[in-house]
Amino acid sequence: VTFRLAELAELVGGRIAGDPERTVEAIRALEAAGPRDLSFVTQGRFRARAQASGAGALLIGPDLKEPAALGRDLLIAEHPGLALARLIALFHPGGGQAARPPGIHPTAVVESGAVVDPTAHVGPLAVIGAGSRVGPRAAVLALAVVGRGCTLGEDAVLHPHAVLYDRTEIGARSIIHAGAVLGGDGFGYVTHEGVHHKVPQVGRVVLGADVEVGANSAIDRATLEDTRIGEGTKIDNLVQIGHNVEVGAHCILCGQVGLSGSTRLGHHVVLGGQAATVNYVEVGDGAQAGARAALRGDVAAGAQVNGDPPTDLHSWRRRTVLIGRLEEMHRRLRALEKKLGREEG
Amino acid sequence: VTFRLAELAELVGGRIAGDPERTVEAIRALEAAGPRDLSFVTQGRFRARAQASGAGALLIGPDLKEPAALGRDLLIAEHPGLALARLIALFHPGGGQAARPPGIHPTAVVESGAVVDPTAHVGPLAVIGAGSRVGPRAAVLALAVVGRGCTLGEDAVLHPHAVLYDRTEIGARSIIHAGAVLGGDGFGYVTHEGVHHKVPQVGRVVLGADVEVGANSAIDRATLEDTRIGEGTKIDNLVQIGHNVEVGAHCILCGQVGLSGSTRLGHHVVLGGQAATVNYVEVGDGAQAGARAALRGDVAAGAQVNGDPPTDLHSWRRRTVLIGRLEEMHRRLRALEKKLGREEG
Amino acid sequence: VTFRLAELAELVGGRIAGDPERTVEAIRALEAAGPRDLSFVTQGRFRARAQASGAGALLIGPDLKEPAALGRDLLIAEHPGLALARLIALFHPGGGQAARPPGIHPTAVVESGAVVDPTAHVGPLAVIGAGSRVGPRAAVLALAVVGRGCTLGEDAVLHPHAVLYDRTEIGARSIIHAGAVLGGDGFGYVTHEGVHHKVPQVGRVVLGADVEVGANSAIDRATLEDTRIGEGTKIDNLVQIGHNVEVGAHCILCGQVGLSGSTRLGHHVVLGGQAATVNYVEVGDGAQAGARAALRGDVAAGAQVNGDPPTDLHSWRRRTVLIGRLEEMHRRLRALEKKLGREEG
Repeated sequence: VTFRLAELAELVGGRIAGDPERTVEAIRALEAAGPRDLSFVTQGRFRARAQASGAGALLIGPDLKEPAALGRDLLIAEHPGLALARLIALFHPGGGQAARPPGIHPTAVVESGAVVDPTAHVGPLAVIGAGSRVGPRAAVLALAVVGRGCTLGEDAVLHPHAVLYDRTEIGARSIIHAGAVLGGDGFGYVTHEGVHHKVPQVGRVVLGADVEVGANSAIDRATLEDTRIGEGTKIDNLVQIGHNVEVGAHCILCGQVGLSGSTRLGHHVVLGGQAATVNYVEVGDGAQAGARAALRGDVAAGAQVNGDPPTDLHSWRRRTVLIGRLEEMHRRLRALEKKLGREEG
Repeated sequence: VTFRLAELAELVGGRIAGDPERTVEAIRALEAAGPRDLSFVTQGRFRARAQASGAGALLIGPDLKEPAALGRDLLIAEHPGLALARLIALFHPGGGQAARPPGIHPTAVVESGAVVDPTAHVGPLAVIGAGSRVGPRAAVLALAVVGRGCTLGEDAVLHPHAVLYDRTEIGARSIIHAGAVLGGDGFGYVTHEGVHHKVPQVGRVVLGADVEVGANSAIDRATLEDTRIGEGTKIDNLVQIGHNVEVGAHCILCGQVGLSGSTRLGHHVVLGGQAATVNYVEVGDGAQAGARAALRGDVAAGAQVNGDPPTDLHSWRRRTVLIGRLEEMHRRLRALEKKLGREEG
Repeated sequence: VTFRLAELAELVGGRIAGDPERTVEAIRALEAAGPRDLSFVTQGRFRARAQASGAGALLIGPDLKEPAALGRDLLIAEHPGLALARLIALFHPGGGQAARPPGIHPTAVVESGAVVDPTAHVGPLAVIGAGSRVGPRAAVLALAVVGRGCTLGEDAVLHPHAVLYDRTEIGARSIIHAGAVLGGDGFGYVTHEGVHHKVPQVGRVVLGADVEVGANSAIDRATLEDTRIGEGTKIDNLVQIGHNVEVGAHCILCGQVGLSGSTRLGHHVVLGGQAATVNYVEVGDGAQAGARAALRGDVAAGAQVNGDPPTDLHSWRRRTVLIGRLEEMHRRLRALEKKLGREEG
């Protein structure tokens, strides 16, 4: 399928600078695009790469400076990121994923007492435990495991090898990627006379709607109540979330983040890759912590922090520079000591 | 089932302050508990939350100050954590987990030459390789993989999608959570003329009794001998343990810890979340390292350290404060330089 | 099987100091070896352990000092690491792994339209999607999942529970360990009015030949083009590789490394355990970063760095010492201030 640039502009509510009749065959990355492709410049720092690109047309935002100097036909969208998402979906219907027709694969094991909506898809060798409910148009892909008493909301997806321990709840349209484990035993022990005794973990994991959980991430169930992930929250790969944690709505947790037990995140919190919290930390609404931030104490709502100890981004950048200059600081300190010793002497 | 507070006190060997006839229907977290529930205050810092709780009765330890001011019927136990574990087990028989009746699910694949005890449970679509032995009352849950020549001790549990490579040994009562991989190839290469040649890894992983391994953790087999995890050691989710590592008995490894190859941990070692060792590090008995400690050298027995480089906790806290004050230190250094320059000039 | 030391020397092109007729029954680690075993000293720092070893013979390199003082029959190889790899293979044919005979296990699910070479091995309960090709002598082990439209090169191995999302390409002889997930959705969202909208990820993951990916690692597919891993690159366990990343040939990524989206690594790059990059970082050919290095900016080809911010190893070691002396530096700063204040006063 091909589109005229004018059609694409209409779809995303954008305008055109250049030839609206240009034919677009595909949407490609800057380095890969050719004259019949549309590419995109969503950040100013990609300007040089855009200049070097073979793309015939470029999607840009209204703020990009000197757009004419790019020398391409331009599709200018108010929100270029949103426009990009829609255009990729246009050129790749179904997001490039295989269709998931309704029905239960004959090799799947569905225990009696499980209720699978007739519009749901259950793939080969998947396992669904007694008392679980799989909602309309939900998909349990090959070799995924739904324990007993679980709920999978409408249009939710479990990718291959995702595992839900018993009684886990997954909201509508949530996506659980391959190998993710939800509802495992919280890491709770009581140590007595040198032996660690297991504290039974009898709570649940409850995910809101529109949550995404990345590959091989782990979310432990609560000791007694619920480990909760709020609606719209997106969790990257290899993220660890301990028992009794509460993550608010619309948070972003990047790869390898670790949330210790009983952490509480407000809504719209963003944690960069490998950032971590210690037990019982509270992070306020809208707070953002950079990659590898060590949240050893509470973080105020709206704060933007990084480092260990965490501080505001401006201070963190200056501190980082000074850590890089510690040797110099030490030399200067010694020079002062010497000078002062000499003057005294 | 309901219990009188006096019955609960008898079970845990505690005493009561208040009404021993109070009926308890459930054990709940402070925020969730109502008048017919028992909750608990195992640390003084939860006092405010206890005060605000709707719980009718509270389990506390003997050291909590001003217990009467809590205004609840109290169950006072010498070891409140242990008591809590026993009470949760009382209210949730089986730890809230589905029963695992003896027998092999018809869809499981048990290679000839594998020996499964008649009291063991093998779930749907599990795979057990030739020459492996599954002990009395052990459980190999749905889609778990036991390679060839493995041993699973009595009452051991492999959760869904746990994988044992060939010749792995799991001690009695050990629990391997979903997605954990034990016995994978150690990361060993010899680089010659720019090409990395694989060093065959022909050793094993051997776990003692009463070990717990968290979801999606990985423990590599040794190059030639055994990667060993001592009895009673508890390992959280997403922990990486390299080849030839020896972890002693009764250690605690929190989430996302990384142990590089040939690390040796004594017994009763505790490593906080994301803490890591480099190759060949030795950590002495009873040593504790805080979250994200970077153990780039040996740690003495009994030491309590944190940071990078690691230091004792008191020094680490002071250092952390000073890192937060580096800008100020730099300003003070400049002020001194200016002053001294002026006086000289 | 036993070998004379002279036979082993011939195999690895080494020479002997001592008795060439000595019989060797096994190759063992220093601590485990007895008089009929060969062990090895590939680094000078293991000398004390070698001295204490019960090994009858030792494999060493030409540079080890005072070899005669070891008091053993010696096999001296130009490249002792390479020799070790060959000798382990000699004593453990097949690398200690079970044979993988050609053929498709009757419980495997191979969708119509998938092409499995007759010499390939497909294990129990494995799943292979339509349009995928499994090459000569390749192995898809128990419960591994090959999505649709994937390619598995000759002699490639997917260990149990490895997952390939649709359209993933795996080069010849590459090894994907248990639980690794390749081709999952890149972590891409556009945030508009507080809601994170998914950017469809329609690219692929493409691995070159002779790549190894460790247990439970995750490599996301690109947004539009390919996430690429170059030939000969070795990736340890629990490594996270984001979308659009390009890793060159013959790199080494140690355990728990994290590569943020659009990172580019040249060839022969080495990243120590838990080291990480932020988005768009470029690391030049042959650069090496130590364990937990925080690559927040580009790294020049050939550089050897560590720390946060990264610096050359010499500076990093001195800086690390100074971080450990921050308290002392602060005391000295105060002493100077006091002195100068007193002199002024």
